[in-house]
Amino acid sequence: MFDEKKLLLYLCTDRALARERSLDQVTEIAIKGGVTMVQLREKELNTRDFLKAAFSMRSLTRRLGVPLVINDRADIALAVGADGVHLGASDMPVETARKIVGTGIFIGATARSVEAALTAKRAGADYLGVGAMFPTGTKSDTVTIGADALRDIKAATGLPIVGIGGVNAHNAESVMLAGASGIAVVSAILSAEDVYAAARALRLAAERSL
Amino acid sequence: MFDEKKLLLYLCTDRALARERSLDQVTEIAIKGGVTMVQLREKELNTRDFLKAAFSMRSLTRRLGVPLVINDRADIALAVGADGVHLGASDMPVETARKIVGTGIFIGATARSVEAALTAKRAGADYLGVGAMFPTGTKSDTVTIGADALRDIKAATGLPIVGIGGVNAHNAESVMLAGASGIAVVSAILSAEDVYAAARALRLAAERSL
Repeated sequence: MFDEKKLLLYLCTDRALARERSLDQVTEIAIKGGVTMVQLREKELNTRDFLKAAFSMRSLTRRLGVPLVINDRADIALAVGADGVHLGASDMPVETARKIVGTGIFIGATARSVEAALTAKRAGADYLGVGAMFPTGTKSDTVTIGADALRDIKAATGLPIVGIGGVNAHNAESVMLAGASGIAVVSAILSAEDVYAAARALRLAAERSL
Repeated sequence: MFDEKKLLLYLCTDRALARERSLDQVTEIAIKGGVTMVQLREKELNTRDFLKAAFSMRSLTRRLGVPLVINDRADIALAVGADGVHLGASDMPVETARKIVGTGIFIGATARSVEAALTAKRAGADYLGVGAMFPTGTKSDTVTIGADALRDIKAATGLPIVGIGGVNAHNAESVMLAGASGIAVVSAILSAEDVYAAARALRLAAERSL
């Protein structure tokens, strides 16, 4: 069910960055440029609006053959038939979410330390989001842990890992070489002048080390 | 599974009103005073903190033999084994939530019109929250629809109804006489100087018309 290869170029959405286009439009261009998995992250919407956005993104990603992951909300993941749910530190613990979603939906967990990664593994996480790899402008509270931390987490858990935080076409290879199965990006694609070209360049950079 | 009698005195929580005591402490006093059902409503907490509060409230309400309803979040209702989930206009539609929670958790829906009430009934709602009955200080965007609207909704749907919004010990009987199975309150209990006495008075007022 969980296909590690789909982590290769993982787009995490941020509605505010889509600007004059809709999030769906930008995401479609990004997928055509090379994005292999999409995580819908909505921290500002109420449940009804998040659900509406998730149904729309489900339809888009299904049409383009890309897995859809819902950030935080197991209920919305279940409601729209998402492929996965991603859980950060302020979201539900992995073991609680697993009881709700069963084994039909994969679970990703954010881990910033070997200890957190091992806890997530024991609880049944299918992959880990590890970062921040590099300093980033997306989140103000980000702690940069670097590619060496990713290497340690990979060695300790053996789980598929996607490196996130400040990853771009120039440094993507170093993340992959540290043991990641893919790179996760937000603004490197969504804030790009040319979304298609940005996704294409990131995809090529991530593939360089394969 | 859904016991209409438990709607009699329905407490909807508001953490901000608990002041120097914990929400659990105030709720325990309120239940001892006569509250028959508790809805945990948390619009400000992140998922992890909401979950923690819900587990705590689940333990309290189970110990005191009162059903627990979770506002908005079907995932949290499932995670803590709540008895019900309550859905407002900005939450998940009833039919979507039903697919997630199955038939093991009852569903309440807010309805402000006969049309909305009939939609909720068709979607499988077990009870309706109807209001605001009277002008209220709890929500600034409240529209007062009054007891006559409750009477119309009861006649159209036949569903168990709890009247909410500005209900107090003086006007509770009019809500019950309009066809409600119970009254729902927030500040009438949580903001009271003597929470026990306030719950007691509301319970007696709600019972007066039975």
